[in-house]
Amino acid sequence: MRISELSERSGIAVATIKYYLREGLLPPGERTSPNQASYGEDHLRRLRLVRALIEVGGLPVATVGEVLAAVDSPDLPLFSLLGVVQDSISAPIPPAADTEWERASATVRAEMDRRGWDMKPSPEAINTLTSVLVRLAQLGYADWGETALPSYFDGARVIAENDVTTALAAGGRDDIIDAVVVLTVLGDTALATIRRIAQAQVSLEMLKNPQQ
Amino acid sequence: MRISELSERSGIAVATIKYYLREGLLPPGERTSPNQASYGEDHLRRLRLVRALIEVGGLPVATVGEVLAAVDSPDLPLFSLLGVVQDSISAPIPPAADTEWERASATVRAEMDRRGWDMKPSPEAINTLTSVLVRLAQLGYADWGETALPSYFDGARVIAENDVTTALAAGGRDDIIDAVVVLTVLGDTALATIRRIAQAQVSLEMLKNPQQ
Repeated sequence: MRISELSERSGIAVATIKYYLREGLLPPGERTSPNQASYGEDHLRRLRLVRALIEVGGLPVATVGEVLAAVDSPDLPLFSLLGVVQDSISAPIPPAADTEWERASATVRAEMDRRGWDMKPSPEAINTLTSVLVRLAQLGYADWGETALPSYFDGARVIAENDVTTALAAGGRDDIIDAVVVLTVLGDTALATIRRIAQAQVSLEMLKNPQQ
Repeated sequence: MRISELSERSGIAVATIKYYLREGLLPPGERTSPNQASYGEDHLRRLRLVRALIEVGGLPVATVGEVLAAVDSPDLPLFSLLGVVQDSISAPIPPAADTEWERASATVRAEMDRRGWDMKPSPEAINTLTSVLVRLAQLGYADWGETALPSYFDGARVIAENDVTTALAAGGRDDIIDAVVVLTVLGDTALATIRRIAQAQVSLEMLKNPQQ
């Protein structure tokens, strides 16, 4: 197909597609004349992934290039690839080195051990979660890690099983990565909102039946 | 106690406390001399709530004033008060009026009806969730509302029961509202992060045992 059809089918402006081509985010088409090139279904799929990373994941163009290099590296296992993508769409938080941080970090570690979660967690994820526990302790909620964290792990596990099943069913590497980005980022907003609706429902039930 | 002690015990600078006093976010102390006033435990508790709304909830000072007016209004039931706070810490999304929106909105409504969730949901929450479903459909995930939404409701419910129990156990109205703000906002970050960790763990398990 010509670039105009690629634009129509992807919903992305021709000028934007040309920009992605210049930045190397999209491989060049097959040249059919000095001024024209032809594009295939692979280009359409790649465009969809680029758009998901930039528009949905909020990634800068340079980072998109790194993620795409990982997608195209055949010796990187899918699991490691998912980690690269997850980390690229999360803002990192540096660890601190004090007693509060050590205590919170140990709580997170203990919760994962208790469940037998043997994945090697990304330092970014662990640092973000630890920093939340430190902040909660500073605000007077020092026992949140013991009283609330387990139910957060329970709830997140239910949702993650659905997420991963959906993503792995998506098809090839490009499609799986597209699904991971879209479902992770939009899923965060969905989950935060559903949590508020659920809080309202549970409050209503508890305040209606205060003896429970 | 004097303002210097109030500052020490709350960890908030004297200049900031004076600013809150001028803006009416904190009631005046009891005047003990032309240049001095005395503050009590109520001031400390209110300061804690103001800080939670501004620093954790990210609310502008004017909105904090509105939330505090609701907290202090004795005829507003606790449940309605929780709604005021929840809506104040969420950015509203306007509804659209097209077929996609109607379809997504009906899916959300049907999921709540199926569960017998009889709370009157805040339009803000429903609009945000609906907009996520519309965006997912536009990105090629049109059946997410049927295949994934139920597990998000399941997971969110587990977590919300913990949230509400913790918040209602916090004490008086000021303490409950403080807990709602802190646990909702920091809980969002915690949940998003735990979801990523859980996704990694589930991917590892599924890719290890692909026959499942």
